[in-house]
Amino acid sequence: MSGRLWDKGGATDAAMLRYTSRDDWKLDQRLLAYDLVATRAHVRGLRRIGVLSEGELDAMERALAELVRKNDAGELVLTEADEDGHTAIEAALVSMLGDTGKKVHTGRSRNDQVLVAMRLYERDAMDELEALVVAAASALVALARREEKTPLPGYTHLQRAVPSSVGLWAGSFAEGLLDAVTIVRAARALTDRSPLGAAAGYGVNLPLDREGVARELGFSDVAWNPLGSQTSRGIVEATLLAAAWQVMAIVRRLAWDLSLFTTSEFGFVRLPDAFTTGSSIMPQKRNPDVVELMRAACSIVQGALVEVQTLVALPSGYHRDLQLTKSPVLRGLDETLATVRLLPRLVEGLRFDHERMLAAITPECFATDRAVELAASGVPFREAYRRVADEIKGLAQGDAPASLAARVSPGAPGDLRLDLLEARLGSFHARGLRSDEPSYAPEPPLTASR
Amino acid sequence: MSGRLWDKGGATDAAMLRYTSRDDWKLDQRLLAYDLVATRAHVRGLRRIGVLSEGELDAMERALAELVRKNDAGELVLTEADEDGHTAIEAALVSMLGDTGKKVHTGRSRNDQVLVAMRLYERDAMDELEALVVAAASALVALARREEKTPLPGYTHLQRAVPSSVGLWAGSFAEGLLDAVTIVRAARALTDRSPLGAAAGYGVNLPLDREGVARELGFSDVAWNPLGSQTSRGIVEATLLAAAWQVMAIVRRLAWDLSLFTTSEFGFVRLPDAFTTGSSIMPQKRNPDVVELMRAACSIVQGALVEVQTLVALPSGYHRDLQLTKSPVLRGLDETLATVRLLPRLVEGLRFDHERMLAAITPECFATDRAVELAASGVPFREAYRRVADEIKGLAQGDAPASLAARVSPGAPGDLRLDLLEARLGSFHARGLRSDEPSYAPEPPLTASR
Amino acid sequence: MSGRLWDKGGATDAAMLRYTSRDDWKLDQRLLAYDLVATRAHVRGLRRIGVLSEGELDAMERALAELVRKNDAGELVLTEADEDGHTAIEAALVSMLGDTGKKVHTGRSRNDQVLVAMRLYERDAMDELEALVVAAASALVALARREEKTPLPGYTHLQRAVPSSVGLWAGSFAEGLLDAVTIVRAARALTDRSPLGAAAGYGVNLPLDREGVARELGFSDVAWNPLGSQTSRGIVEATLLAAAWQVMAIVRRLAWDLSLFTTSEFGFVRLPDAFTTGSSIMPQKRNPDVVELMRAACSIVQGALVEVQTLVALPSGYHRDLQLTKSPVLRGLDETLATVRLLPRLVEGLRFDHERMLAAITPECFATDRAVELAASGVPFREAYRRVADEIKGLAQGDAPASLAARVSPGAPGDLRLDLLEARLGSFHARGLRSDEPSYAPEPPLTASR
Amino acid sequence: MSGRLWDKGGATDAAMLRYTSRDDWKLDQRLLAYDLVATRAHVRGLRRIGVLSEGELDAMERALAELVRKNDAGELVLTEADEDGHTAIEAALVSMLGDTGKKVHTGRSRNDQVLVAMRLYERDAMDELEALVVAAASALVALARREEKTPLPGYTHLQRAVPSSVGLWAGSFAEGLLDAVTIVRAARALTDRSPLGAAAGYGVNLPLDREGVARELGFSDVAWNPLGSQTSRGIVEATLLAAAWQVMAIVRRLAWDLSLFTTSEFGFVRLPDAFTTGSSIMPQKRNPDVVELMRAACSIVQGALVEVQTLVALPSGYHRDLQLTKSPVLRGLDETLATVRLLPRLVEGLRFDHERMLAAITPECFATDRAVELAASGVPFREAYRRVADEIKGLAQGDAPASLAARVSPGAPGDLRLDLLEARLGSFHARGLRSDEPSYAPEPPLTASR
Repeated sequence: MSGRLWDKGGATDAAMLRYTSRDDWKLDQRLLAYDLVATRAHVRGLRRIGVLSEGELDAMERALAELVRKNDAGELVLTEADEDGHTAIEAALVSMLGDTGKKVHTGRSRNDQVLVAMRLYERDAMDELEALVVAAASALVALARREEKTPLPGYTHLQRAVPSSVGLWAGSFAEGLLDAVTIVRAARALTDRSPLGAAAGYGVNLPLDREGVARELGFSDVAWNPLGSQTSRGIVEATLLAAAWQVMAIVRRLAWDLSLFTTSEFGFVRLPDAFTTGSSIMPQKRNPDVVELMRAACSIVQGALVEVQTLVALPSGYHRDLQLTKSPVLRGLDETLATVRLLPRLVEGLRFDHERMLAAITPECFATDRAVELAASGVPFREAYRRVADEIKGLAQGDAPASLAARVSPGAPGDLRLDLLEARLGSFHARGLRSDEPSYAPEPPLTASR
Repeated sequence: MSGRLWDKGGATDAAMLRYTSRDDWKLDQRLLAYDLVATRAHVRGLRRIGVLSEGELDAMERALAELVRKNDAGELVLTEADEDGHTAIEAALVSMLGDTGKKVHTGRSRNDQVLVAMRLYERDAMDELEALVVAAASALVALARREEKTPLPGYTHLQRAVPSSVGLWAGSFAEGLLDAVTIVRAARALTDRSPLGAAAGYGVNLPLDREGVARELGFSDVAWNPLGSQTSRGIVEATLLAAAWQVMAIVRRLAWDLSLFTTSEFGFVRLPDAFTTGSSIMPQKRNPDVVELMRAACSIVQGALVEVQTLVALPSGYHRDLQLTKSPVLRGLDETLATVRLLPRLVEGLRFDHERMLAAITPECFATDRAVELAASGVPFREAYRRVADEIKGLAQGDAPASLAARVSPGAPGDLRLDLLEARLGSFHARGLRSDEPSYAPEPPLTASR
Repeated sequence: MSGRLWDKGGATDAAMLRYTSRDDWKLDQRLLAYDLVATRAHVRGLRRIGVLSEGELDAMERALAELVRKNDAGELVLTEADEDGHTAIEAALVSMLGDTGKKVHTGRSRNDQVLVAMRLYERDAMDELEALVVAAASALVALARREEKTPLPGYTHLQRAVPSSVGLWAGSFAEGLLDAVTIVRAARALTDRSPLGAAAGYGVNLPLDREGVARELGFSDVAWNPLGSQTSRGIVEATLLAAAWQVMAIVRRLAWDLSLFTTSEFGFVRLPDAFTTGSSIMPQKRNPDVVELMRAACSIVQGALVEVQTLVALPSGYHRDLQLTKSPVLRGLDETLATVRLLPRLVEGLRFDHERMLAAITPECFATDRAVELAASGVPFREAYRRVADEIKGLAQGDAPASLAARVSPGAPGDLRLDLLEARLGSFHARGLRSDEPSYAPEPPLTASR
Repeated sequence: MSGRLWDKGGATDAAMLRYTSRDDWKLDQRLLAYDLVATRAHVRGLRRIGVLSEGELDAMERALAELVRKNDAGELVLTEADEDGHTAIEAALVSMLGDTGKKVHTGRSRNDQVLVAMRLYERDAMDELEALVVAAASALVALARREEKTPLPGYTHLQRAVPSSVGLWAGSFAEGLLDAVTIVRAARALTDRSPLGAAAGYGVNLPLDREGVARELGFSDVAWNPLGSQTSRGIVEATLLAAAWQVMAIVRRLAWDLSLFTTSEFGFVRLPDAFTTGSSIMPQKRNPDVVELMRAACSIVQGALVEVQTLVALPSGYHRDLQLTKSPVLRGLDETLATVRLLPRLVEGLRFDHERMLAAITPECFATDRAVELAASGVPFREAYRRVADEIKGLAQGDAPASLAARVSPGAPGDLRLDLLEARLGSFHARGLRSDEPSYAPEPPLTASR
């Protein structure tokens, strides 16, 4: 029987172990690298307060370095027999170091061990999310520049409303995504406090060097109150998923638009070939499957969020319920990262059909322009509105580029303020954010309009 | 027939108006003050670009001031006959000013009119939420100071685990709430960009002074991209509700603890009388109804969040679906504010039964202390753990205050670091945050422990 | 101070009463009629076991009849001062009958009083929902008959796939709705057990005639276990909302299709005028607002469902948390009924543009037909598929009506089996289900195709 | 490059395949057996309409039998290279049979192939769920019988309310679970209609024998309308998850009670050893981990439900979004089955501490009895209530068994009506429902009360 940390010779049997361990060993494989680095920081802290001797620390560090190497090489593979990754590390140290290994768990609990590994993973995931979101926004701003003045109907209620532009459309996603970064960063800040040293939620009778450990792990602060730290589990995670949701809700809107714009009826856009697939029964189909999955992916995050939120309806203190936060958090964040990662390539590969977009700007789209013109000339707007409404059938076709140029309220197609977006992007790049996604040469338009 | 703004003589009938207007007129009553202030900023902006003459602006300002006065006095009461508050304002201006009134809607759409009123309301709500959360945290820190060293069992899995303290317990909520402020503020930042001038999502052919209008309304920025602004509706609101949820999840934990601690079985705490009620059939009952509702209130926010998140699964552009964001946002934020507002009074009125809490710290609670002591003296922790486990039945009763004093890992009962919490609170107070909730004198403990 | 049932002179003050009573008095206004009828059944039961004398029962019955009359006449108006409707009834009886009135609460608790009123309301709501769903399905089957062979493109991935028909399209909603009735009925069955006599969840020391009371209230059974009955609160309600969700999810799909089909780009359908509205800034607009709200309404039900599901994460026994089930249940069911009620009128008023639909069935829609024809003639399907795929550009335009006629797999456009749907409808009508919604004469098509 | 069914030489690359295929191959491994049996029924149907010759059918049947054998033996292992299980089956048939294998996809689409496999899986899962729920209810009824008259305090608001019994408590879960079977069965009925023959949602130009195929697969009906069938995907699945949720909500309540009852403070129950685990840092702990996970498991179902419900906010027709229904459905149903499967063993292994339960029935628990007694003797109940409330401090200790015996309202502890529950159970057993879970001998009580 394996060395479960807490095993005192009890009776828990195979069926129960299966139900309690679930596929945590699979999830923990993902967390192992974080657990190892946190374990190293922990034992170094134990040395500083004299719990470990210099020699013991050396042995521990060497053993941990070996485990890190094996893990990097894919040789440290958890199986169902390992209850979880945390047990596996202690077991490995004991088997490598004997009594010295048995000292690793001094002053910590699996609770803060799990939590620190999760928070380190989450911090990385949020950093990556920020970088990917900025990269996606960059691609969208580039598209907005490239097709800044390309006419595209503006819709409300899915009804043609007024002339708009691809520049406005693409810029709207970029602005939405950069706004979302505010929340992504705030959520990330919640992960940036070290839980190590909370033990089971009440601290221990050792003067642990929590600040030193936090510093070594790159945390900007300690989650001081041990019970506050333990009970943040699930609550902070819900907030991360809510931040991811905001990003994904904007992606969903983009995917929905592309789904519409690629119908035969709209016919405004052609997707990159890599984003389409065929049908098993209909030989002619070229379906926007990838875009549909990017739209649907938001549901995964929404479900994961509810799952975590519902879990944490609990009194204070650790409960085993909290183990179940791990799966939805990984599921939700992984899906978010995988989806956002595809955006630059998608955006850069879009090919617009200028002719069809222009043709869809039919005479009634100019009605509002007319009414506002009348209003500007002194006719009360409500009067102007009714006058134009009465003449609606006889409206002549307008000139879309001229309409766009005249739409000069700040941010509108005639005064798009892309420079402001570019400046915001610049401030992100200045922070050293990678936007090192492979770049794809933009596609030429399908047709030129006139 | 009332003057619906968009009415061109169509056939929409009573049943349809009922279904489309719903109880928006009730919700809009809440938003009317914001709509009026935004309308004033809008007409001032129209003057600056020459759409209104000085005289027209004067007339508008006087009329709006009168409407503000009536609204403040409760005389501007919307009814079901008013389609919504936005229509009602325009109708009032027209009836007061004739043709001049008909100019108010120049360069704006109901879409950005609704959105600006919502964002102003939301900004206020988030400001109030921050202040209330800080006030609640203050009360909790004061409690932690007052009962800093009072022994209380620490639980994991609802099983007695180690000696803990009321100080640690109360501090954990304070720390959680102050962490949540990070998200509350970030969410508030999303509301702090002026949508006015987006019109129906594509701008207008007038050089609106969007920055001036934003400045007048106290926004720190303009939501430049009109389509980005329009489509943020519902997405930003979901993020506000997610921030509110984080606060409420911590309140839910506090309420759960109090629900447990006030059972006859635990018997640790007596609630303020005002927070209890009786039973209609059981004469003896003194039920913690208010605390139970504070626990349940989180569900309202969670439901509202899902409602909004599900609504916005839509392509770009305004859709009538978005009207339905209003109700869950008001419902969720109102509930949050009402609940958090009760916290200081609840916290200040708690009376702890020192004797019962101490009596609940039974011998087995000292097992971990023993194991860590052994570990500190050089016995490998896993060895120490098993040794204590073997002797568990014979464990002598420990000294809870001594155990607390010895628990010196930073943040633990022996080194609680309340000064750090107080410093964080101080930084909030320095920002001028009110914590002007009526204060209630703290209650003496029910019993003194020895 | 009003006569709160449980008031023993405690200190609960105005702020607390406000937080605990909420707008229950508004919700209870809706439940008052049910509470009165249940109260009458309860006192009759008390008479049968000798708790009330004949004279007391007579007095009670007369008083209750008077209250029913006043309530029907809209004269029994609850206000915020009434803690809830249940208290109000007892208070009224006491004020009318003195000591006799004080006997009404013998053997019951507000818990089972609330629950029985809710279950009676819910039973009615589910009955109405079933009738409305059947009426909607009738309208859809009638439409399917009327336009049985009208060609309409069939889409997958929003891409044109194969020729389909309005008959197939309309029938799909009818079939979905009739399937949903299975769940509506099952959920209704859960409401059909009388909770009266459960008292606070543990029964009382009186031989209540629970079966007689149940029979009088038209319940088909008693919810025997008092604790089971009490703790079903919220769980049964979630199931009702889940059933309502299924209906609304199908309505959402219909509304989505209509939203698409009424775009200028598709242009397949014209909505009844009553279902459209204009824009406050764009004079030309004719927006499908009602249909968009019908689509969005599903979110209200989904949010309400999560709200209730999250609430009931509780141990056994009544908790005040459960009070908060009332609001989402009424909100969710009301919205469902209001939305489904509009369906027959919407469906009957749809006008199809035969020419545009036919024109949208472009040559590639016939590719699958060709591949299957080849397969039927002996070419392996995968071979046939590739062959057609290779020739896709040169595909000749097909004959849509012929394609429909040839699509003879059972249920397909060539063999639609509407008779089976009509038979299912007939079985509902035979159960006496009203489909007495006002009928609107169907509109002629906008254009005839050829 | 493998033979993706729809591959026409397009450009979809590895990154895209990864994003679109996800871990469907893992999920499909679960569905393979169902897909094979459905494929066999499909080819038999093709033979009956002459698409396949007798020889071709024979070859197909032999090949399919071989695949079934390999699958049963665990030799048919999908890998990431297989796009999905449906593709893998066709590819295997082609490799085994050449041109004959290429005929298997005649008249079907991957859409109805996936759907039929899912529905067959779901039907089995719902059947198993019903059997497991009935087995759990049996164990609970047996417990109710065993401890029918054992006193246990009845709580409201977690406050002691009135004397209750273990019989009442255990029976409440049994009744709740049997009620839930109503919904489980109704949901199962929705899975019991064959989707095969719907093809891509619009049927095919072949006279498929849909009824014969349905009969062979044991479906009780055909889902006639092909578009109705396709668009039921996700909607029916949400309903299955809602039914599973109802079961799990009752399990959650049971787990919550056990979590409370096993605290030191309540101390009413001892869990079977197999259901507890230790702590990695606290040597003395014996934690109810399994019960906590059973409580938490409801969140998984709730999250999965929201995930599916959110996904299907789509217009008619297949969309790739629907692929994402598979994962939450399997996740939610698997979790439900795994959890409910543990119930009989848990229930049978509970050991009650009669003395502690009796001791917790303190004098105030008899107050209601007294008030009702007074009421029965003619004192108006509201009067009796106040009289008892006034004397509450001086209430003498009552006799719990006598109180239980006197509580004779039907269903109450004095008249529990377990015979009715047993009769309901009997009707399930009569349907041949297995309750063949391994049985564990019930544990003797920890202490006998007097």
